[in-house]
Amino acid sequence: MSKRILGIDPGLVHTGWAILDSVGSSRKYIASGVILPPKTGALAIRLAFIFEKVIKICDDFKPDECAIEYTFVNKNPTTTLVLGHARAAAMLGAATKNIPVFEYEPNKIKKAITGAGHADKEQIYKMLKILLPAANPKTNDESDAIAIALAHSNMLKLVTGDTSHGLRY
Amino acid sequence: MSKRILGIDPGLVHTGWAILDSVGSSRKYIASGVILPPKTGALAIRLAFIFEKVIKICDDFKPDECAIEYTFVNKNPTTTLVLGHARAAAMLGAATKNIPVFEYEPNKIKKAITGAGHADKEQIYKMLKILLPAANPKTNDESDAIAIALAHSNMLKLVTGDTSHGLRY
Repeated sequence: MSKRILGIDPGLVHTGWAILDSVGSSRKYIASGVILPPKTGALAIRLAFIFEKVIKICDDFKPDECAIEYTFVNKNPTTTLVLGHARAAAMLGAATKNIPVFEYEPNKIKKAITGAGHADKEQIYKMLKILLPAANPKTNDESDAIAIALAHSNMLKLVTGDTSHGLRY
Repeated sequence: MSKRILGIDPGLVHTGWAILDSVGSSRKYIASGVILPPKTGALAIRLAFIFEKVIKICDDFKPDECAIEYTFVNKNPTTTLVLGHARAAAMLGAATKNIPVFEYEPNKIKKAITGAGHADKEQIYKMLKILLPAANPKTNDESDAIAIALAHSNMLKLVTGDTSHGLRY
């Protein structure tokens, strides 16, 4: 089974994204980057920037499925609210292109990659470099987006039921 | 100066909307309703429902500007996060149609309608019925959306600077 996966690490200032191909048990890094919306101006315009860039990534790379981190509420409630907006903009970009969006809790992403739900960023980065040597993320947002896509590819065989619209894990 | 205004009271379960015309100092109620996304299923699909309905309202009524409540963080952080998602979906619907989105703090909405920043729902409802006798909102969400549109129409003369993309008040 071959699938192209879009991983997204959302944020209003930086939204990381990554594309990888999952063919049987092998994974191939295709592309990754960071969406940088304008830092000021009307919120609707900043959100529209994320939304439109995700649509462009979907048009350019034609992923089959999208994976995004399930956000736990942050200690700072204003940050939580802003993250909710950015996350919705990214999810809507994929949904508008009829791409199912799967949500993963952070510890499930870590576990799917390293085998441990409490792995730190360095352990995850080491696994990314082993599993996807072609990947060379320049920022944490890009690295996290690759990790999310990779986690989804590792979870695919466990996913059951109607997944035509995505699910939350 | 004549303007058609879309007011939105966002929520993942109920999103109220209202259209009114502002011509000089007079206001005319045009339409209002509630968007009811599916209550279950993938979050991206529920958000896409709000997004698409707002686009349809914009296509049907062709508003010049959109006004939405600026959300203060809720006591329940999970509610805050969910509201952020729904609010972004509604804002993106208007932004996609190139309609500037203005955000108003709740006390500014109350003050613009009743003259008091701490007016209760009943006082606001009474003013709505005086100012817009044709309006007959069936739910609080619809009533709040009318109030937001009305507040924006009353604030228009105070708005200065580049408002081509909306602003927050």
